[in-house]
Amino acid sequence: MHRIAVVGASGYTGVELLRLLSQHPDLELVCVTSRQYAGQAVCEVFPSLQGSLDLVFEDINSASLSGRADLVFTAVPHQTAMGIIPELLSAGCRVVDLSADFRISDVAIYEAWYQEHTATELLSEAVYGLPELFREQIPSARLVANPGCYPTSVALALAPLLENDLIDTTTIIVDSKSGTSGAGRAVKVDTLYCEVNEGFKAYSLPRHRHTPEIEQTLSTLAGRAVTISFTPHLLPVSRGILSTCYASLSSPLSLDALHAVYREKYAAETFVRVLPKGHLPNISQVRGSNYCDIGLSVDDRTGRVIALAVIDNLVKGAAGQAVQNMNLMLSLPENTGLMFPPIFP
Amino acid sequence: MHRIAVVGASGYTGVELLRLLSQHPDLELVCVTSRQYAGQAVCEVFPSLQGSLDLVFEDINSASLSGRADLVFTAVPHQTAMGIIPELLSAGCRVVDLSADFRISDVAIYEAWYQEHTATELLSEAVYGLPELFREQIPSARLVANPGCYPTSVALALAPLLENDLIDTTTIIVDSKSGTSGAGRAVKVDTLYCEVNEGFKAYSLPRHRHTPEIEQTLSTLAGRAVTISFTPHLLPVSRGILSTCYASLSSPLSLDALHAVYREKYAAETFVRVLPKGHLPNISQVRGSNYCDIGLSVDDRTGRVIALAVIDNLVKGAAGQAVQNMNLMLSLPENTGLMFPPIFP
Amino acid sequence: MHRIAVVGASGYTGVELLRLLSQHPDLELVCVTSRQYAGQAVCEVFPSLQGSLDLVFEDINSASLSGRADLVFTAVPHQTAMGIIPELLSAGCRVVDLSADFRISDVAIYEAWYQEHTATELLSEAVYGLPELFREQIPSARLVANPGCYPTSVALALAPLLENDLIDTTTIIVDSKSGTSGAGRAVKVDTLYCEVNEGFKAYSLPRHRHTPEIEQTLSTLAGRAVTISFTPHLLPVSRGILSTCYASLSSPLSLDALHAVYREKYAAETFVRVLPKGHLPNISQVRGSNYCDIGLSVDDRTGRVIALAVIDNLVKGAAGQAVQNMNLMLSLPENTGLMFPPIFP
Amino acid sequence: MHRIAVVGASGYTGVELLRLLSQHPDLELVCVTSRQYAGQAVCEVFPSLQGSLDLVFEDINSASLSGRADLVFTAVPHQTAMGIIPELLSAGCRVVDLSADFRISDVAIYEAWYQEHTATELLSEAVYGLPELFREQIPSARLVANPGCYPTSVALALAPLLENDLIDTTTIIVDSKSGTSGAGRAVKVDTLYCEVNEGFKAYSLPRHRHTPEIEQTLSTLAGRAVTISFTPHLLPVSRGILSTCYASLSSPLSLDALHAVYREKYAAETFVRVLPKGHLPNISQVRGSNYCDIGLSVDDRTGRVIALAVIDNLVKGAAGQAVQNMNLMLSLPENTGLMFPPIFP
Repeated sequence: MHRIAVVGASGYTGVELLRLLSQHPDLELVCVTSRQYAGQAVCEVFPSLQGSLDLVFEDINSASLSGRADLVFTAVPHQTAMGIIPELLSAGCRVVDLSADFRISDVAIYEAWYQEHTATELLSEAVYGLPELFREQIPSARLVANPGCYPTSVALALAPLLENDLIDTTTIIVDSKSGTSGAGRAVKVDTLYCEVNEGFKAYSLPRHRHTPEIEQTLSTLAGRAVTISFTPHLLPVSRGILSTCYASLSSPLSLDALHAVYREKYAAETFVRVLPKGHLPNISQVRGSNYCDIGLSVDDRTGRVIALAVIDNLVKGAAGQAVQNMNLMLSLPENTGLMFPPIFP
Repeated sequence: MHRIAVVGASGYTGVELLRLLSQHPDLELVCVTSRQYAGQAVCEVFPSLQGSLDLVFEDINSASLSGRADLVFTAVPHQTAMGIIPELLSAGCRVVDLSADFRISDVAIYEAWYQEHTATELLSEAVYGLPELFREQIPSARLVANPGCYPTSVALALAPLLENDLIDTTTIIVDSKSGTSGAGRAVKVDTLYCEVNEGFKAYSLPRHRHTPEIEQTLSTLAGRAVTISFTPHLLPVSRGILSTCYASLSSPLSLDALHAVYREKYAAETFVRVLPKGHLPNISQVRGSNYCDIGLSVDDRTGRVIALAVIDNLVKGAAGQAVQNMNLMLSLPENTGLMFPPIFP
Repeated sequence: MHRIAVVGASGYTGVELLRLLSQHPDLELVCVTSRQYAGQAVCEVFPSLQGSLDLVFEDINSASLSGRADLVFTAVPHQTAMGIIPELLSAGCRVVDLSADFRISDVAIYEAWYQEHTATELLSEAVYGLPELFREQIPSARLVANPGCYPTSVALALAPLLENDLIDTTTIIVDSKSGTSGAGRAVKVDTLYCEVNEGFKAYSLPRHRHTPEIEQTLSTLAGRAVTISFTPHLLPVSRGILSTCYASLSSPLSLDALHAVYREKYAAETFVRVLPKGHLPNISQVRGSNYCDIGLSVDDRTGRVIALAVIDNLVKGAAGQAVQNMNLMLSLPENTGLMFPPIFP
Repeated sequence: MHRIAVVGASGYTGVELLRLLSQHPDLELVCVTSRQYAGQAVCEVFPSLQGSLDLVFEDINSASLSGRADLVFTAVPHQTAMGIIPELLSAGCRVVDLSADFRISDVAIYEAWYQEHTATELLSEAVYGLPELFREQIPSARLVANPGCYPTSVALALAPLLENDLIDTTTIIVDSKSGTSGAGRAVKVDTLYCEVNEGFKAYSLPRHRHTPEIEQTLSTLAGRAVTISFTPHLLPVSRGILSTCYASLSSPLSLDALHAVYREKYAAETFVRVLPKGHLPNISQVRGSNYCDIGLSVDDRTGRVIALAVIDNLVKGAAGQAVQNMNLMLSLPENTGLMFPPIFP
């Protein structure tokens, strides 16, 4: 049994990670931490987990995890993550980091969009953990940077186009919509029920912090620098992201041909479901699961392709992908503990 | 491997049953039927199930299931169920019926609240499948009547009070609230999104058809005839029932004492979680799971006890309980395939 | 033109009051205050009001309103209200108080359910402003205590039964459900979108603070002391309250007879709509309006009557009723500025 | 008093029109028709309107309106509209048509996206009723084609860019999201509560029927043929449209400069609110009102402008704009009966 710890388990990503880990057959959850809830039973804070998990939130420093856990998930805010991860690694733990701190390999870009980076020595070692696109380095990694929710949906939606050089990469526009759990569980007027309910808006224009992460991935896939327009919106649902991605085709391509490219690309991937031609994805068809569903449209009138991807932002966009990365790091079958269907309705 | 069929799998209860059965380790799903969708792949109708289930809806008569399935779930409307179940039993299948047709043992009561009963010869044989309260007869039953959603929540909320003779049974009032999936997937103006969203109402007053089913169970538990007032309401959520049950205490009782009675009653039950004293249940803490969570309050000023129970109407209130009954009938551990935590948020 | 001020206009009740007052033909809104937003334009904080209201939030003490406003709405929390109202009255302003501080005439009861009362000298002067039931004293009042949202719905639902002595007053049970705007705009984990959405729960059992206010009104109407059980629940909608009120009939009464009693009681009331027999009210049919809709059911099997009332908690349950009281105080037609239909869907 | 009729008043647009017309000071509503509800009181079908409207749905042919109504709103499906409007005009009525039948002036385009047009003789006479952009011809029109909901939001968002020749018109991409009331009140599985709730999807790709209507308007504004990509999505809210419109700037432009262009363009328009720089619009800030709120962003990295517009699809996107057109046709102040603030929350 692998010994696992979760640092910062009191947010929505944290509790989702606990839900998944509590069902995983090959591990022992040895420690969950929360500054806010230290000393309280996890089930008291999250009654949904009663019967699945019998732990008390601890408030420990990273050093004290040494020798207790083989692998640690860090589900703390960016900047906090870079403060504790070096110690965790020194203590011999492997780490899956759910923050943004080790996702961007170019420190200048990171610092332009976030703030100063204080653990730059780890940037070259960190592996970007999007298994369907960059699986090779994950098994041997000490530190995996778990991708952002928006970037996961966009990368999977656009990868076949970029790898096959099918689009004009200067024309990419990504219009994304996310459920409110993506905004976290910290209290703010903006995420009160009455502010979100029956509402819908764009936010963080024109410079949402997921932009450079998306561009880094797309550039890698394209083999050249890609700049995009990225507009996130807040959906009045708890879970789910839909990214509508637009680009001009380099040359005319039928929907049949395009569909075949996607089917082939993802033929062996458990968690990517390319929908039948003519079907468009709905966030409700992946809720609670690790699936990414992709639909396609070709607009002959304008020569554009529209690729749409949906994920559950807390699963494939966070905790589920983190478990997928853990499985790879621990040489377990990649889909262990993740093969359950979505909940509908 | 047990061979299982689902007759009438195109409603919300049906698709939920398919979700659960697709994850069950000890069975083979051999046939799913739907008049409406016959010939279509299940995954085309319910894209959430892609990757979990690879069957095509059949449109068969019950006779043709003979020899194919050991146990059949009937998830068709009342009156339809009584038409096909006799044949299924004759063909050697065992049946878990999710309709109301075999829940009420007194044919006169059934006919007063529903319509004529055409399979009365089976009423004495049918077993009411609420395992936590009536587990004994289920394993050997040929025909199990799976309880209604409201009745399940009310029976579990009130059983400890009735079995211990703690309340005046003439004073029971049940105020229940159900998510909209309980109204089914048939198209009606009343269940259109814009009619339900941001709305809330009572309905079917004063004679909702679950009333006699609830009274039958409460009477059995009390050992004398019990008549109640039952008011169902429609909640603008997809899943979940909360039943708020009121009764006058026979004699004063502290919340401590009351809580102890409930803890003892359900100590061995996996799927009933009696909440810590002072905690009140939320439907969101059981979503997607087979749990029933119970909270208690004593109103000293009026001498009343208030027992509140929440379930997911599609799981413990329908498909999950049906699987629980199937497990008992097939001599499998009762919780097989049902031990996953709720999804929150 | 009457000069009006609103103290504490940054919550949901406050902004609703501004919406209504901005449309009122016979007044001038001279001042709106908010400690939190002082110095900011109202429209910047609440963009919905752009074009309707051109004021800046002030942070003033009550004294400075002297000479500026004829009538002041206080929409601040209880305890804060009792601190500023004496000064407002001394400064010559008349006051409609939307807090609980002057609703309960018996100081001992107030202090048992809230905290110490520091303006007891005003309790006998304060008038409980529920026009449909206690209209007489409002026009001449200096200080009107605007009723609570739950109490308004319950009083209107039960008044005809109590005034006509039709029920056993020891059997009253009130099961209420409120939209989330009733919980206010202060930031708390409990009212975050993801906590409320797809959820439903009871809260504050067994002693919600609206209980004594309801009992005071029901006792006045009945002419004897009435004690009730009151259970509030939190609905995943922004606006609306439905109260389901149960009581045993003193002697058998047909729905026809009961319906006639209600029709007669409210025949002259603009804002109370007794629904046709057999119709049950939905909160969505009063959204945004000052209506209270009432539906009735008689349960012959148990001898109980069930009276159901719906209101918009922010309008008839708060700001709308406050404007109705203001109209009476200023000798304007009672429905001035309030005669708009609900918004559906 | 102008005599007004509404033909086809039983859908969401129809009931919204009744809400608005019932409050309008200068007209008499003489007739409302509905095939489905003929003979029923409007208030029985739509209880929200009790107290505002005392009419019974009629089932009449258009001829019988002759002499009864001066102006008729037709709120029936396309193709039905073109069948009755010629008679209404012959009978001397003026018409505001809320269907798509007379919005597209080029019959070939209409027939390519809809079906055969059987009243082509009226196409040249029909006036496209988007007052903020094409006000001149409306007052004298016999037949006004009320714009579609999506087209209204897009035209208002992009007009200043096109009229000032600020963008490359080959690069326009419109990503729109609409509340579910836009799908109407006809019963379909797709608009059941449980299908829409907690869901989000694109639909009708790549050829939604509003595309040619949008292109016609944009082409008129630009003075040359404009082809766009248009992707509609279904939001889990009752009301509201947000259109996110992308285009490449012809030459670099600061947000300041851009904002000034919009402020100037709409300076005299009551119903268009250009938000302060840096503010992005939310559908919740226009709910129930006739406002269109516009926000802007310039993405310097890509040289694109992003213009976002929100409307209430049932008001500015349908019934409210229809009343605005009626006001112009009847020489009433354009905003008569429409000057109420949105409802928030």
